Amino acid sequence: MKLIRFGKPGYEKPGVQLEDGKRIDVSLFGSDYNEQFFESNGLGKLKKWLESNQNDCPVVDENERLGPPVCRPSKLVCVGLNYAKHAAESGMEVPKEPVLFFKATTAIVGPNDDLIIPRNSVKTDWEVELAVVIGEKASYVSKEKAMDYVAGYMLHNDYSEREFQLERYGQWVKGKSCDTFAPLGPFLATKEEIPNPHDLDLWLTVNGELKQNSNTSDFVFDIPTLVSYISEFMTLLPGDIISTGTPFGVGMGLNPQRYLTPGDVVELGITGLGSSKQLAKGFDKIESN
Amino acid sequence: MKLIRFGKPGYEKPGVQLEDGKRIDVSLFGSDYNEQFFESNGLGKLKKWLESNQNDCPVVDENERLGPPVCRPSKLVCVGLNYAKHAAESGMEVPKEPVLFFKATTAIVGPNDDLIIPRNSVKTDWEVELAVVIGEKASYVSKEKAMDYVAGYMLHNDYSEREFQLERYGQWVKGKSCDTFAPLGPFLATKEEIPNPHDLDLWLTVNGELKQNSNTSDFVFDIPTLVSYISEFMTLLPGDIISTGTPFGVGMGLNPQRYLTPGDVVELGITGLGSSKQLAKGFDKIESN
Repeated sequence: MKLIRFGKPGYEKPGVQLEDGKRIDVSLFGSDYNEQFFESNGLGKLKKWLESNQNDCPVVDENERLGPPVCRPSKLVCVGLNYAKHAAESGMEVPKEPVLFFKATTAIVGPNDDLIIPRNSVKTDWEVELAVVIGEKASYVSKEKAMDYVAGYMLHNDYSEREFQLERYGQWVKGKSCDTFAPLGPFLATKEEIPNPHDLDLWLTVNGELKQNSNTSDFVFDIPTLVSYISEFMTLLPGDIISTGTPFGVGMGLNPQRYLTPGDVVELGITGLGSSKQLAKGFDKIESN
Repeated sequence: MKLIRFGKPGYEKPGVQLEDGKRIDVSLFGSDYNEQFFESNGLGKLKKWLESNQNDCPVVDENERLGPPVCRPSKLVCVGLNYAKHAAESGMEVPKEPVLFFKATTAIVGPNDDLIIPRNSVKTDWEVELAVVIGEKASYVSKEKAMDYVAGYMLHNDYSEREFQLERYGQWVKGKSCDTFAPLGPFLATKEEIPNPHDLDLWLTVNGELKQNSNTSDFVFDIPTLVSYISEFMTLLPGDIISTGTPFGVGMGLNPQRYLTPGDVVELGITGLGSSKQLAKGFDKIESN
């Protein structure tokens, strides 16, 4: 299944994107895609419910805004430097253990919402990433069993303000958590849709020019390793998100460096997970609207 | 007002602690202390509701477990090195800007719940802290207006695994997010209960021996500065928590260093915010229960 959420920000309804691309409203199923949904086998129940109700579901207008496919996860855990080439361009060595950081969940927006460049930002950068959605509460999970705790996958752009992240005293969270810095989607693809998440092309363009172009086979740490490792340090809840790091080609790594300015258009995609597109807007312009 | 939550973990009910220490069940008010409560002037409405309903509220048994006073905040933002003496004992300089990091909200527990020392931990440490609860959505808030966005205060023990935090590759989050690492409460004291949050004694003992003993007048950055500063990097939601850093006297700073082992009892308190007490338990012992 491909799960979507659609409608105005903060008032999204749950939907499903069918094989032919048509989107249907599954509000009548009675549950948004939140912690409780995943915890209570919502995926299994929804699949069964669709067997008898799919044809009665209203079709979602194709111009309708898409929201993030998951509703208010408890956390968004990110992995740093998980592609060898990206670590090199950042001037950092490949870590011996996964580097973890959090993004604020308030940064989460829909896949095609505008990117708001924060006030005083001069180094807003892009990062195409494969995001993993947790399906079951995970604490001290072994690598061997880790995939049982995965519900599915999403496309994620881990926007990062490099000055806030690296030049404003300690800890990356400052450059990772600004509003609109985590567009998710267009949809959550359940696990069975992506037979091998370790061989997916991922790409990102700025104004049509290819900047990132890699494959998840370049991961330093694969998904079972990440789920298992993170679950040693914290409990992952159903609906929580792990973003698996970005490959070579971010703006900070270019020579000269290239950061986003209002009017820039960022597009990105991953095999089987669709594509998203964000228009960069300046903060002050938003404020005066 | 002093807000409490009581009952089994995950099933807490809202309550109020009265002037005489008696605790009453305010479930009939109809709202838990979550984002929506704070956002919709729940504090004002609850106060008014109590005027006519207080005497009809059931009394909470004094042996009842207390939960964290706030329900599932979107984030728990912490400030590092915010007391000059603690920065020195950590071997770090006093920062020119606040150092920020997140704790996973899954680390939050009640004030007197057991501390579970994580598997493979050898450096579990304590940190008494004043936590600030946000009452209104805050984005790019000025220092002058920052206190308008504060709902109240709580006692917090920011437990920290120093090896996970400092010796396991980048970013402190690994040592800050383990389950039970964020006991909050006993209660949330609303703003009017604490006329001057910048002159509160705070203390912590381990097995009755005083380890931390300071006053919030030693803050490097005061509360308006912190609220304003954090709101430049992310939107704070109603119910979100800012923990303002810990003073001198953590285990890592002692000579020799002193870390917690099963059986240790940690007690802590802040003027006007009550006290809490955690018994340290080993992870494996818990697992075998």
